[in-house]
Amino acid sequence: MAKLTEYKDMNPRARAVVEGIAKARGSDPANINNVWKALARHPDTMERFAAEMKAVMAPGALDGLTKELIYLAVSVANQCDYCINSHGYMARQKGMTEEMFGEFMAVVLAAQKGNKIATAYRVPVDAAFEEK
Amino acid sequence: MAKLTEYKDMNPRARAVVEGIAKARGSDPANINNVWKALARHPDTMERFAAEMKAVMAPGALDGLTKELIYLAVSVANQCDYCINSHGYMARQKGMTEEMFGEFMAVVLAAQKGNKIATAYRVPVDAAFEEK
Amino acid sequence: MAKLTEYKDMNPRARAVVEGIAKARGSDPANINNVWKALARHPDTMERFAAEMKAVMAPGALDGLTKELIYLAVSVANQCDYCINSHGYMARQKGMTEEMFGEFMAVVLAAQKGNKIATAYRVPVDAAFEEK
Amino acid sequence: MAKLTEYKDMNPRARAVVEGIAKARGSDPANINNVWKALARHPDTMERFAAEMKAVMAPGALDGLTKELIYLAVSVANQCDYCINSHGYMARQKGMTEEMFGEFMAVVLAAQKGNKIATAYRVPVDAAFEEK
Amino acid sequence: MAKLTEYKDMNPRARAVVEGIAKARGSDPANINNVWKALARHPDTMERFAAEMKAVMAPGALDGLTKELIYLAVSVANQCDYCINSHGYMARQKGMTEEMFGEFMAVVLAAQKGNKIATAYRVPVDAAFEEK
Amino acid sequence: MAKLTEYKDMNPRARAVVEGIAKARGSDPANINNVWKALARHPDTMERFAAEMKAVMAPGALDGLTKELIYLAVSVANQCDYCINSHGYMARQKGMTEEMFGEFMAVVLAAQKGNKIATAYRVPVDAAFEEK
Repeated sequence: MAKLTEYKDMNPRARAVVEGIAKARGSDPANINNVWKALARHPDTMERFAAEMKAVMAPGALDGLTKELIYLAVSVANQCDYCINSHGYMARQKGMTEEMFGEFMAVVLAAQKGNKIATAYRVPVDAAFEEK
Repeated sequence: MAKLTEYKDMNPRARAVVEGIAKARGSDPANINNVWKALARHPDTMERFAAEMKAVMAPGALDGLTKELIYLAVSVANQCDYCINSHGYMARQKGMTEEMFGEFMAVVLAAQKGNKIATAYRVPVDAAFEEK
Repeated sequence: MAKLTEYKDMNPRARAVVEGIAKARGSDPANINNVWKALARHPDTMERFAAEMKAVMAPGALDGLTKELIYLAVSVANQCDYCINSHGYMARQKGMTEEMFGEFMAVVLAAQKGNKIATAYRVPVDAAFEEK
Repeated sequence: MAKLTEYKDMNPRARAVVEGIAKARGSDPANINNVWKALARHPDTMERFAAEMKAVMAPGALDGLTKELIYLAVSVANQCDYCINSHGYMARQKGMTEEMFGEFMAVVLAAQKGNKIATAYRVPVDAAFEEK
Repeated sequence: MAKLTEYKDMNPRARAVVEGIAKARGSDPANINNVWKALARHPDTMERFAAEMKAVMAPGALDGLTKELIYLAVSVANQCDYCINSHGYMARQKGMTEEMFGEFMAVVLAAQKGNKIATAYRVPVDAAFEEK
Repeated sequence: MAKLTEYKDMNPRARAVVEGIAKARGSDPANINNVWKALARHPDTMERFAAEMKAVMAPGALDGLTKELIYLAVSVANQCDYCINSHGYMARQKGMTEEMFGEFMAVVLAAQKGNKIATAYRVPVDAAFEEK
């Protein structure tokens, strides 16, 4: 089992990170999710990851749901069970319907297949598709 | 180098697949991209993958660009150079701007990091996030 | 580019490994393939890997071609281009026909898909399938 | 935990898939394994995967056990626990003895090592092994 | 669950391996860790892996802790939960402090990111960095 | 090929990042390595990655060479050719001898094997090794 630190037992730097996240979500810091309880032992990494997630997941040229689907696709490819569960939840919070999830999965599976076809048949990159 | 079969040299089943793709794209079958030239030696797999891609990548509950971004995210996670190049091209064709690509990459990188944090710290799944 | 050492320039331990492999294959040590030219700089690892390959790839309860197909399947899953090429060659040498290669690829692609389905849908292991 | 749908609660399309699998195996649809209970929520993907597995895993130029070993090799490389368990069971059902399993594992481990040797030493592909 | 064989029930070859490990660690063979209980069914692989680990993990040009950190880094990248837990323990036994673990993780996360940047942006290798 | 931007053509934010790196290395910004030429198109990600690398790779509780070896181990596990080449160079710059590289590789290969043994035999985590 991971070594989890509850909010009330965290050092000041970790508490500040958790308070920032809880405030943005309108939730109770005591109910922070486990990834932050695990990171609390390493405040440098915790602060850096929290700042990166905040900057990166906010809606911009891509909307929030699309960003969650990209995050989720990477997590499935990397076999990260925790991330599939937590970002699956986030995606549903941001509007992913059951039908969207079905289509998401179908694309992920086709991509897995396409990736291995390209690799196993040793397909050379098409000149026409190269970025200029 | 892959063993590539040009359109004019393909067997009838492979030609039919290529013609279907070229027609849908409004392009010349002779200019089909390399993945199909590589698959031409195995018509069963070629027909199955072409049918799957057609069914799966068409706009539905998710639009075409979002689907390309999901495909691209899997391809980056799986280190598939051919797929990154070809689906990067497809994504730009379907409207991915440079700004969107920048945000896409930023999410992919954050996800890579989040995946490894969850794994290395052995973070247990949050009960609150479990799908009911 | 890898730092390759030609047979004539190898240290005695590396030469001995190459001679053992060439003798078993009935080939010229000067024509040894690149993986051994790369390993020549680290004789401990070279000797250990050569001994392991010799013990493991010889026909036993599984025949030589089946072993090559298992090796090749791992190499495709791990995206190892060198290994796909060299063990694809070995498999053809040991009797893999084009039809067999087609079926091999079809199974690999189905497995890729099955692996991601199990992961993404978080499928619990069936009690009935557990090894007793 | 995955969201599993029991056979009796499935929609008609999912039931039909399960009935087809159970019939081919001579088993009770109510005892279908978990991967199909998980896929029941997405009938498109379920039908596609069932059709692909049926076409691909049947004996052909490669026998049924060899196909299971290829599937299992991919699953080990991809770290898919569910697949290792279920296809390990299938392989034993199709005749994999303990001795065969031992040899299978030995080849998988050698391949893992060979894959990383080729990658880390950046070994260039041998011209002699290229497919013509 | 894995099929584990307790020390008292092992065949003579497996017992010998366990006794060698226990003696080197100054521990009781009955308390051997699970990986060896799992490998006991395949003595060839067990003997080979035990010999390799003994040769490879001993202090040499690199000290014992550095070797554990390298082993741990590979295990995190490969998402091996058992290995993260057991080699995390070994690293702490060999002197890894909490501060070192924090820095270790920070480097692993930066590497994950750097790996995907190089892949996704398709960065060509710098001539200046090539090994001569 | 990646879309590389030379230093003289970079936007001000990218130039500032390159100048910071070149200054720390005592080198010419025009000779910056390719990863930074590739990242120049996305200044947000570039600044974030440069700041992270600077904070993380500096000597601390772990020395600079150990950090490079950890980075390199992750890159080999992830099959990142660019990273293997560039961080292999960095490691040699920071004192990695040929003998150290040989031992590094031997540990990486043993870890790959240990990872797959644990996964394939489905080895349960030892209670004695759990972090308290």
